[in-house]
Amino acid sequence: MELKQFKQKLDPLITEFLDKKIKNLPQFTNQEIDSYFLHLKKFLIEGKRIRPYLAYLAYKANCEESDDKAIKLLMFIEIFHAFCLVHDDIMDKSSHRHNEKTTHEFIRDLNKSNKFVDPKHFGNSQAILIGDYLLSWAFEILINNQDFDKKTIERVTKIFFEMIDEVFLGQMIDLNITKEEKVTDEIIYQKILLKTAGYSFIKPLLIGASLSGEVKDKTFFEEFGKHLGTAFQIQDDLLDIKYDSSQTNKSSFTDILEHNHTLFTNYIFKHGTAEQKEILNKHFGKTVASDQANLLRKVFVDSGAVEYGEKIINENLNTARRILEDQKMDEEYKTMFEKLIEKMEGRTS
Amino acid sequence: MELKQFKQKLDPLITEFLDKKIKNLPQFTNQEIDSYFLHLKKFLIEGKRIRPYLAYLAYKANCEESDDKAIKLLMFIEIFHAFCLVHDDIMDKSSHRHNEKTTHEFIRDLNKSNKFVDPKHFGNSQAILIGDYLLSWAFEILINNQDFDKKTIERVTKIFFEMIDEVFLGQMIDLNITKEEKVTDEIIYQKILLKTAGYSFIKPLLIGASLSGEVKDKTFFEEFGKHLGTAFQIQDDLLDIKYDSSQTNKSSFTDILEHNHTLFTNYIFKHGTAEQKEILNKHFGKTVASDQANLLRKVFVDSGAVEYGEKIINENLNTARRILEDQKMDEEYKTMFEKLIEKMEGRTS
Repeated sequence: MELKQFKQKLDPLITEFLDKKIKNLPQFTNQEIDSYFLHLKKFLIEGKRIRPYLAYLAYKANCEESDDKAIKLLMFIEIFHAFCLVHDDIMDKSSHRHNEKTTHEFIRDLNKSNKFVDPKHFGNSQAILIGDYLLSWAFEILINNQDFDKKTIERVTKIFFEMIDEVFLGQMIDLNITKEEKVTDEIIYQKILLKTAGYSFIKPLLIGASLSGEVKDKTFFEEFGKHLGTAFQIQDDLLDIKYDSSQTNKSSFTDILEHNHTLFTNYIFKHGTAEQKEILNKHFGKTVASDQANLLRKVFVDSGAVEYGEKIINENLNTARRILEDQKMDEEYKTMFEKLIEKMEGRTS
Repeated sequence: MELKQFKQKLDPLITEFLDKKIKNLPQFTNQEIDSYFLHLKKFLIEGKRIRPYLAYLAYKANCEESDDKAIKLLMFIEIFHAFCLVHDDIMDKSSHRHNEKTTHEFIRDLNKSNKFVDPKHFGNSQAILIGDYLLSWAFEILINNQDFDKKTIERVTKIFFEMIDEVFLGQMIDLNITKEEKVTDEIIYQKILLKTAGYSFIKPLLIGASLSGEVKDKTFFEEFGKHLGTAFQIQDDLLDIKYDSSQTNKSSFTDILEHNHTLFTNYIFKHGTAEQKEILNKHFGKTVASDQANLLRKVFVDSGAVEYGEKIINENLNTARRILEDQKMDEEYKTMFEKLIEKMEGRTS
């Protein structure tokens, strides 16, 4: 099953789950709160599902069982991911995601002319709660599952808790980086390993594998996931500076706004001309005005930062491909993983 | 076991749990992040433990088993409560709790002279993550428990999920109330039922009872908890307007600052003199300057709002006492519950 088919199978389950949860909330009459949950449904339906799909592939690579039960369980990964997005978007001050307003901006805008509350603080507060709901619901899906035996759920839960402890720490380090005038490439790689490679690749793979039994290929999944995840995060940082939001459906220059050091900003500080450094410094930590965006983009290209980043991305994707080739695995699922690497190579959103 | 002894038994378990969690976080070197967790430990050690204690009493009222295993499990209620406090304090802009700075204010102050980030937004962001950790850890304590059989853990978990869905909705309604120019007493009571009575009383009681077997006295716990919880919340709202923070170790006039309607503000709008309404309106939604605090306090007293609130508190405590008297229960634990009511009658913090 390819990612597209997987999403087609998963999405109705997500909608069904959300509808049921929302319907079963304690009785209340507040149209505005209703509208938060409607927005959440729209928001949730747009994801790519890459994390539960990776888990699914790792599961199927080791197991002949039926798909449906696994997909239903792995939904918890996507609900957890939605939680991460809702909270991260507050922290990163992101305004759009998946063609929709982010949750806190949606709620802020609903209340922008209210005279009793600060609409921004109000939007952030309600979005914190929407995120809290999603985190709790991710646990609910996992813990209430009756399709897998207790031992299996325990194995999955153990990895899930490890993942949570890692990804929150990764996000804390991510935020802390924004306070520094300069950071080393090493710290950036440490953050990538915790926040992206671990969270979006290694742990989903291990969760999927553990769903089919005791994990035998832990080292493979860790190494494969590390390189895929590193490529993915650097691509993300690249998309943020290379394209405008109409091309990616995400806010652009959010790392610049948040004073978030990346391999790209580091490259300019190390290898850029005095003028390039000055332009970067002028914008770093601020909103990039639309008439300044192309000039700043040009600095990332002309300094060689974009080329350098693309080289690192390719090296990591190639290493991942080599690790995959060397791994003994059902050929059908090896092909699926290969297709995923191909897809990442051409990624523009 | 009285509340004081219960706290003495629970607190070392909380410290032990936190120390182990913090020690087992992925390797990282960031003294500032270390300091967040140190602050969290100080913050967590100050709680009254009333929620897990209520659960404990409901457990012991039905069961002769040893205490230690139950206390160890019920720790999850206190960790969940710490999560609620950390996130709520962000939403309510509270500056102090338990004699300590709130988490977001602590982190904000650490960074108040940083030139790359907005210290307030930075403090809120890291505090969101500290809260997220606590929510996940509450689940971890409950799910990884090996002292109780799976059926028991399932019963407890089911009530926990109901509690979460209720308390988050209660908090959402609480925030929404602050946007309105006027609200009815009915909406205030609905919020109290979800956010305080359900969360702090009914559900802890049901969790404790379900730990000793299938719950037989559901209606008793629901009614008893409803009246205790209603009294507790109105007391909380009273403390916020009646005393200054040196007397309660909490910020005062937070409801006024947050434009949070209570039975007390409603009473003034309904029964106050024109002058009293004007003074309330002048402050409602704003920080109360220290030289204005006594004048505003006097309005709450002179209008009769304080007296009215105290009457409702006493009525609810008396009803709770009557319900308790009518209930068949081990006399030892009935006495404990009675002591709790007595304690609430004299509550000043």
